[in-house]
Amino acid sequence: MKNLVYIQSGGPTSVINSSLYGAIKEAKKHPTLIGHIYGSRYGIEGLIDDNLIDLGLEDDEQIELLLQTPGSILGTTRKKLPKDIHTVEYTKIIDTIKKHNIGYVLINGGNDSMDTCHKIATLVEELGINDVKVIGVPKTIDNDLACTDHSLGFPSAAKYVMNAVNAFSVDAGCFKKGKVHVVEIMGRSAGWLTAAVDLLPPETRPHLIYIPEIPFDLEQFLVDVKKVYAEKGFALVAISEGLQFERDMSNVRVDGFGHVQLGGAASELCRIIESRLDLPTRAIEFSIVQRAFPSFVSLIDRKEAINTGKKAVQAALKGITGKMITFERVSQNPYKIKYLLAPLDKVANAVSHVTPDMIVDNTRMSDKFRDYLRPLVVGEVKLVYKDGLAPVTVLKHHKVK
Amino acid sequence: MKNLVYIQSGGPTSVINSSLYGAIKEAKKHPTLIGHIYGSRYGIEGLIDDNLIDLGLEDDEQIELLLQTPGSILGTTRKKLPKDIHTVEYTKIIDTIKKHNIGYVLINGGNDSMDTCHKIATLVEELGINDVKVIGVPKTIDNDLACTDHSLGFPSAAKYVMNAVNAFSVDAGCFKKGKVHVVEIMGRSAGWLTAAVDLLPPETRPHLIYIPEIPFDLEQFLVDVKKVYAEKGFALVAISEGLQFERDMSNVRVDGFGHVQLGGAASELCRIIESRLDLPTRAIEFSIVQRAFPSFVSLIDRKEAINTGKKAVQAALKGITGKMITFERVSQNPYKIKYLLAPLDKVANAVSHVTPDMIVDNTRMSDKFRDYLRPLVVGEVKLVYKDGLAPVTVLKHHKVK
Repeated sequence: MKNLVYIQSGGPTSVINSSLYGAIKEAKKHPTLIGHIYGSRYGIEGLIDDNLIDLGLEDDEQIELLLQTPGSILGTTRKKLPKDIHTVEYTKIIDTIKKHNIGYVLINGGNDSMDTCHKIATLVEELGINDVKVIGVPKTIDNDLACTDHSLGFPSAAKYVMNAVNAFSVDAGCFKKGKVHVVEIMGRSAGWLTAAVDLLPPETRPHLIYIPEIPFDLEQFLVDVKKVYAEKGFALVAISEGLQFERDMSNVRVDGFGHVQLGGAASELCRIIESRLDLPTRAIEFSIVQRAFPSFVSLIDRKEAINTGKKAVQAALKGITGKMITFERVSQNPYKIKYLLAPLDKVANAVSHVTPDMIVDNTRMSDKFRDYLRPLVVGEVKLVYKDGLAPVTVLKHHKVK
Repeated sequence: MKNLVYIQSGGPTSVINSSLYGAIKEAKKHPTLIGHIYGSRYGIEGLIDDNLIDLGLEDDEQIELLLQTPGSILGTTRKKLPKDIHTVEYTKIIDTIKKHNIGYVLINGGNDSMDTCHKIATLVEELGINDVKVIGVPKTIDNDLACTDHSLGFPSAAKYVMNAVNAFSVDAGCFKKGKVHVVEIMGRSAGWLTAAVDLLPPETRPHLIYIPEIPFDLEQFLVDVKKVYAEKGFALVAISEGLQFERDMSNVRVDGFGHVQLGGAASELCRIIESRLDLPTRAIEFSIVQRAFPSFVSLIDRKEAINTGKKAVQAALKGITGKMITFERVSQNPYKIKYLLAPLDKVANAVSHVTPDMIVDNTRMSDKFRDYLRPLVVGEVKLVYKDGLAPVTVLKHHKVK
């Protein structure tokens, strides 16, 4: 009998702990095959530092609350493992795996995390440790993972973005002489999340939508903003954080590590609009709220997150290793997916972008995009409240000795 | 038979249109006393510019959606009327009132708007126009209106702030070496909304809370932040936007009107933390989302907003004028309020602050504060969804000729 370790890696999502929930529930169904269920603290760092907690000792009530707890409850990391799998980090990882008799390693993450997952799978295979199975669980609000219809966490983030923009568009348009509102939405290289605002009705939809897939022309942007403002008396503009344009470098900050800290893209564009067009502006950054919000979780996203956690355990128990769970959409109406498996090396080295046939122009996406997104955001979850607050899981953190 | 005009004024809230809903419902009950129900476009500007719409011609479905529509659906204004009530604006207001046979003027707003309300009431009284009744409906997420237990919109904003901070505190604490997160919450001179985070459990509550009622000492702030970070590996700090400290003026923007535009307080404090403490930071501004969010509306807030709209119509029909509806808390457990009336001149010239006996220090409020706030945020509203989106009211805007 082997133990299982669950790892959360990279940026959190609103349903990241629902996958953990599914994995715990499934693992408990196999008491003769899986001994302890461990959580790794701070992603892969927990395996390097021998910092595991025993999730079997947590209260049921707190496990149930995982379903409405955004953020990585186990802790996460952005650490990248070295390319050379013969370095000290890997030795430590193997030591921890052996010390705690681990047979199942589940890594929940995005592109970079699947690279980590792939390296661990390759390592154990190369070392001939055949009784350790490594499975990836897809997750990223950016939705840029390859080999899968979509990524867990994206539908809920999209639902948040849609509903938040829809709600404050009334606020944004309620003054006679309004402002240019520039809303910055997450997505460094892919515009999936920003494009989600296209599902809004014409009355609340942003007038202009800028995603990294369309080359950004600052001069045309200013012309477009000016035109909308002249027509409407205000403007609502949605942009991806990863938009590429020439920034004002005269006033950048440098952090403790010497890294240049650029201002947010929305703030920077607002500064340019004010100085070039002499219009009042407001920059709105959804920041981490968009990836960590319980009340607009998509029902489909939560269900799929739970199922994927379960499927990952089932796959590992079947002896499968070096694969990530993927989704194939087998029916559009009614929406239905099939859970499949993709080799980790294929996933780790690819990025999925919004395709040209999903884009019309800077004001609209195509029917193809809307048909793709709509079924993912349908359905609401019911939150448990106590005194007006939707509580989140608090773990006891029983450290494994 | 006279007509009624409803005015929304100042900053919007998540339940501002629920008061309008209540007023429309009540007005329709009195078809022999109230003829048309008009909405004034962009606050008092609609009376000055003769820009009214006929709300009686809107579809029932859209009127029902007012309950989940944040933002001022009629449009709002920050315009201040001149002190001298013998100027041209007032002449135009009286012209519009006479032209459209208006007998009931309802103004929904905060401090400044109650000043407008008071001026109109004084004007019609001075001119001997005795058949025009003017009633104020209290509203401000800042909760700084005097003469009332609380203001409409504050409970929902507080519920949003509590739940959003609660949810992303897991995210904020999920890296081994985290950031100093500074969350900026609305409230220019009163800290009610920021203090709401005190209701969170110790695991998710911000480590430090700064409100305008406590003089801000930047050096002590840096000492406190450094200490928390050293202990926890990250820090979560809640601040009111109105916090007073010496800003870096070397890089301010000036807008089209020559007004100096200060950066957000959170961004500025993050800049100082980075340069003085050499710690990584993240500034989070809730911006207009906190006052325009449908999914964390407090049930009590919505109910009271509807009732207040109704009471305002009832008061006007009784011939009362120059008053604002107020709330007196007559029972704490179970929570119960009585609707009263206060003279507008008393309301217009006072600000309600968090009282010293509600504050312990920069880490906690007192039991008195928590007892005050808790009943206001209890209870959830059910939203209507369509394709994953909570729709908002779209008006036809039938202009009154």
